[in-house]
Amino acid sequence: MKSKTPFNLRQLNRGIRVNRFHRWARCGENPAMRQSVPLDRCSRLLNHGPTVLVSAESGGRRNVMAAAWSMPLDFMPPKVAVVLDKQTFTRTLVETSGHFALAVPPVALAALTHRVGNTSGRDRDKFDAGLASAEPGPATGAPLVDGCVAWLECRRIPEPHTEQAYDLFLGEVVAAWADDRVFRNGRWDFDGADDSLRTLHHVAGGHFLAIGDVVAYDTSLDPAA
Amino acid sequence: MKSKTPFNLRQLNRGIRVNRFHRWARCGENPAMRQSVPLDRCSRLLNHGPTVLVSAESGGRRNVMAAAWSMPLDFMPPKVAVVLDKQTFTRTLVETSGHFALAVPPVALAALTHRVGNTSGRDRDKFDAGLASAEPGPATGAPLVDGCVAWLECRRIPEPHTEQAYDLFLGEVVAAWADDRVFRNGRWDFDGADDSLRTLHHVAGGHFLAIGDVVAYDTSLDPAA
Repeated sequence: MKSKTPFNLRQLNRGIRVNRFHRWARCGENPAMRQSVPLDRCSRLLNHGPTVLVSAESGGRRNVMAAAWSMPLDFMPPKVAVVLDKQTFTRTLVETSGHFALAVPPVALAALTHRVGNTSGRDRDKFDAGLASAEPGPATGAPLVDGCVAWLECRRIPEPHTEQAYDLFLGEVVAAWADDRVFRNGRWDFDGADDSLRTLHHVAGGHFLAIGDVVAYDTSLDPAA
Repeated sequence: MKSKTPFNLRQLNRGIRVNRFHRWARCGENPAMRQSVPLDRCSRLLNHGPTVLVSAESGGRRNVMAAAWSMPLDFMPPKVAVVLDKQTFTRTLVETSGHFALAVPPVALAALTHRVGNTSGRDRDKFDAGLASAEPGPATGAPLVDGCVAWLECRRIPEPHTEQAYDLFLGEVVAAWADDRVFRNGRWDFDGADDSLRTLHHVAGGHFLAIGDVVAYDTSLDPAA
């Protein structure tokens, strides 16, 4: 199996092994790079529109899927919205457990994001199959995917009509975390960090763009003032 | 007034003047760069999470605001979701007209996006005040802001509970357009185009990131196959 692991994923695994994520994932450590994000700042983790991984666990079953369609919904208490198709096993787990996690994968996880977004976890545990690794979130038990740069643990806000009619799920964020190599002083800051840590933004058909650089512009408010 | 126009905006105006947008905006032309996007592809305009401008018109009153919190909701018929705070005048116009437009501003409109996102249009028409220019959308009459790189005209899907409880508005896209310098063959393609045409992604407090480059990765689906 190892010999069939694509090069990018092997590189990634090696990267995880030499940084502290690996130890954290195995030993429950909370390394310096995985910092708690205050709840009143956690909407900033999704403000810029990254593709996310949605994960959930219920009764010993786990799953993770990719979703380009998620967004913040409120500041405090922080809420999020995410579209979960009726066919997805993750949706079943969210409905039964009442919890889910959104994680923000970086460029280094592009292949993983593509894979978990194109296979079903109903008949096979994607984690056991080696498509991703994770540990249970301390607040909800939902799997937090290793190697991501942010994680939001959420409690489902039941809205049966919205869920049925639009596949739209709402959640209250109860805990949030970010990799402090790229989320510093309460905001994303990719300057000086490795490009493999930039967030992924889905275009179409498995094509992603990485987030780019800071935009410099004149912030004076009103040309007519 | 002209002398107070910030440099970036002056540059932008010059850019508009030398391309065909200016003539289109003034004369109602539909230049080659503003192409109709098939409705079954229009979710792709928002897939990658750009900050948008939300605009609406009702009874001769117009407004435009910035929103980082929007996303696609369905493919066909295409639907979108956007958060509109109760304090915004745009929300009032959406409620009374039943229509709104989402437009995707590029880097060249960062200052404009910041300005219309930080002033209220309730007491003053932002267009008349020179903060932005627009023409009525052919499908809905909602203002389509000049200089953007994509536009989605939407019919509000009334969901009073969702709107009241979460400030969450849903819409069906009835027409969509994109600048074919950066949206080609049914997807965003910023390669080779001027960086001023890249989309804006709000981080926090008026700080934006531009969308970056294509992510290369191994697309083979399953390491365990």
